[in-house]
Amino acid sequence: MTEEMPVILNDKYLADFVRKDELDGIAPCIMAAAEILEKKSGQGNDFLGWLDLPTIYPKTEEYARIKETALKIQKQCDVLIVIGIGGSYLGARAALEFLKTPQYNELKKETPNIYFVGNNISADHLTNIFSLCEGKEVCVNVISKSGTTTEPAIAFRIFKEYMENRYGKEEAVKRIYCTTDKAKGTLKSLADDLGYETFVVPDDVGGRFSVLTAVGLLPLAVAGVDLDALMNGALKAYEDAKESDLQKNHCYRYAAYRNILYRKGKTVEVSCSYEPCFAMMCEWIKQLYGESEGKDGKGIYPTSAIFSTDLHSLGQYIQDGSRILFETVYHIQKTHSDVVIQHIADNFDGLNFLAGKHLQEVNDNAFMGTMLSHVEGGVPNMVLELPDVSEATLGYLIYFLEKACAISGYLLGVNPFDQPGVEGYKKNMFALLGKPGYEDLAETLTKKLS
Amino acid sequence: MTEEMPVILNDKYLADFVRKDELDGIAPCIMAAAEILEKKSGQGNDFLGWLDLPTIYPKTEEYARIKETALKIQKQCDVLIVIGIGGSYLGARAALEFLKTPQYNELKKETPNIYFVGNNISADHLTNIFSLCEGKEVCVNVISKSGTTTEPAIAFRIFKEYMENRYGKEEAVKRIYCTTDKAKGTLKSLADDLGYETFVVPDDVGGRFSVLTAVGLLPLAVAGVDLDALMNGALKAYEDAKESDLQKNHCYRYAAYRNILYRKGKTVEVSCSYEPCFAMMCEWIKQLYGESEGKDGKGIYPTSAIFSTDLHSLGQYIQDGSRILFETVYHIQKTHSDVVIQHIADNFDGLNFLAGKHLQEVNDNAFMGTMLSHVEGGVPNMVLELPDVSEATLGYLIYFLEKACAISGYLLGVNPFDQPGVEGYKKNMFALLGKPGYEDLAETLTKKLS
Repeated sequence: MTEEMPVILNDKYLADFVRKDELDGIAPCIMAAAEILEKKSGQGNDFLGWLDLPTIYPKTEEYARIKETALKIQKQCDVLIVIGIGGSYLGARAALEFLKTPQYNELKKETPNIYFVGNNISADHLTNIFSLCEGKEVCVNVISKSGTTTEPAIAFRIFKEYMENRYGKEEAVKRIYCTTDKAKGTLKSLADDLGYETFVVPDDVGGRFSVLTAVGLLPLAVAGVDLDALMNGALKAYEDAKESDLQKNHCYRYAAYRNILYRKGKTVEVSCSYEPCFAMMCEWIKQLYGESEGKDGKGIYPTSAIFSTDLHSLGQYIQDGSRILFETVYHIQKTHSDVVIQHIADNFDGLNFLAGKHLQEVNDNAFMGTMLSHVEGGVPNMVLELPDVSEATLGYLIYFLEKACAISGYLLGVNPFDQPGVEGYKKNMFALLGKPGYEDLAETLTKKLS
Repeated sequence: MTEEMPVILNDKYLADFVRKDELDGIAPCIMAAAEILEKKSGQGNDFLGWLDLPTIYPKTEEYARIKETALKIQKQCDVLIVIGIGGSYLGARAALEFLKTPQYNELKKETPNIYFVGNNISADHLTNIFSLCEGKEVCVNVISKSGTTTEPAIAFRIFKEYMENRYGKEEAVKRIYCTTDKAKGTLKSLADDLGYETFVVPDDVGGRFSVLTAVGLLPLAVAGVDLDALMNGALKAYEDAKESDLQKNHCYRYAAYRNILYRKGKTVEVSCSYEPCFAMMCEWIKQLYGESEGKDGKGIYPTSAIFSTDLHSLGQYIQDGSRILFETVYHIQKTHSDVVIQHIADNFDGLNFLAGKHLQEVNDNAFMGTMLSHVEGGVPNMVLELPDVSEATLGYLIYFLEKACAISGYLLGVNPFDQPGVEGYKKNMFALLGKPGYEDLAETLTKKLS
């Protein structure tokens, strides 16, 4: 097993923006936030199950069963359809693309293709995925705490019918896996009635904190991800993040700096990386922080970029537009592959000064050059150093960011674990679609629309 | 050929945020901006070639040659590698995904796979693409005005060697197509020396405005896109956008509202759509507006979201976080596919109230419900109505957004056609990589980093 390497926060390039005594100034608040988190006495404290997952979960029967079931699914099918939205979608997809590249489906050899549905209401998307299932053996993993969230519920209704028509009811049951509430809800009832194998979305773990439960782990295991390495990475972060000296606690320091920058008017965070495999991780980060902090008229707006690609689109703005941004760079120190630039005799492109250099070295210099340039342009930059693209690093990073997010939320004075603002569109949508019980709202909305 | 349908700006849901007389108030500035644009007397007026492209370009020899060459490439290869960054990358990819779905490579039948490289410095990305070329016939379209932009230059150096090793020098020449300067530069010289077929990046069309030149059109034609329909759509927008009555000119009105909202402190625009095929169009939009407006310490920060996916990640923030956002919704009225939700006897999921409804209808109600909810939460919403996902609509939209962007930039008081801020990272990167001529800067930077 790989040694779990820590994620390090490099704050050297913040020096022009945040003085050391500002960090000292916020330290008591950070420690207060940490205390209510650890003592589980703060707001949203019935959703703190994620905090101890790395120590508890790998010892459970379910964890072992995930690994067994993944092997079974690998044998059963060529395509695994993962139905879920929000936290029941982003974590697994982000981890998959980080560990196995965004071209996983085109490049992988032994393991099934993995397609994500039920995270939108697009007929074209669903139709495309059905085309990709043609002639392939299919299994389904439907992930929904309640079973009633509209997007995955619609997708599951359609895929359940597809599976039953294609395989017959009995065989379909053997190919459908549910990750849902342990005891109640629409999906759990159905699973019990029909005999689907089930895994649990814990009561005390919110969607955006659930990637290290069956929610994320089952699809990842099917893709061949080493769950033990992932969980060990998270365990290392769990231990490191208990450090009470703020200077040594990179997780708390990240939370502290974010809050200091926000109070200085930096209202937008650009999470960025120089590797395309990090793009979906950025989406996961955006949910984690956006949903946890964006409430009560407050919060840093989470955005993302992949460089150097987006230096040629957003780069101009970051360098020289409104000074409302700060950047958090996820710097991957070692990628899977290595490409060396060759010397060529005619030097037609004038690039021989790069001959013998590894692409990683060029990329690293783009990163450092960009950071110095953006800092000079007035954009605070923090760097989270990731040693590699391994399971251990990812597990560490996930836990690190979850805990930093919780601290950030408490520091901001919000409940980091609720998301009341997500209900608005759902209610309106139900009313407009004529769901029984929403008649009054429907009338109000129809007037507004007419 | 399809009738070119216009893109309509629905501003009804702005009523709570912008009064009619505010639009009257800004009208004279809009007309002044339009006048310097049409008379080509404003800043950056040597980069206005895009303004008349729809009337001129389809009549050229090159346009005809693009179509012929695309047919040839379709016969030559299974994989077309498109090398380019920024405007030499985003337009073609965005249009491809919009018209042919994001799963183009997995779903298309006759036409070649299309992979984009040279838009980053990732060894893993390049290595993955080489894996995908194994056992496939390959052609290359390298797109670079100068031939010296680092990212595509490195990728081209590597792919040129690959093609020559694999096919021999003579055959490689027949499989490499260059889109570059008409007369000068590294890539043009090489093409002339070796005999590559070339297409032109016009002098007076900046990268982010170049999708309707050979830059975008050659890869799109290879993917089977109907160029005539695309250009006809753009021509219709060209004509419609000449309208001098602001109330009837949707393009100018979009620019006007953006500026009004910006002056009210809405510093972040969320461009969003309910169809995943629009995701890369959002990236193109982010470059177009970010690079054009983000300068001199000013500008709206361009971000994007795909709903309803991101309602379960960014939705909470948009509904209830810092009130710095406005949304521009790209509402696609008709998609390629149609899925109808079926009635089921046991109604296990309680969704029978949706039975008989088309997924598009559910999606549209999610859109309307979300808009009403976000507006109530204090987020101004504009809607750009797109009739369908056709070439005609896309051509119209591209021209519409380009012209609105130019007007927006002039209204903001910046040169919408330069991007001086992109140079900073390039210079630093060259210095750090030891490029001859950058020795002094290298010394300064090395000190900063040590």
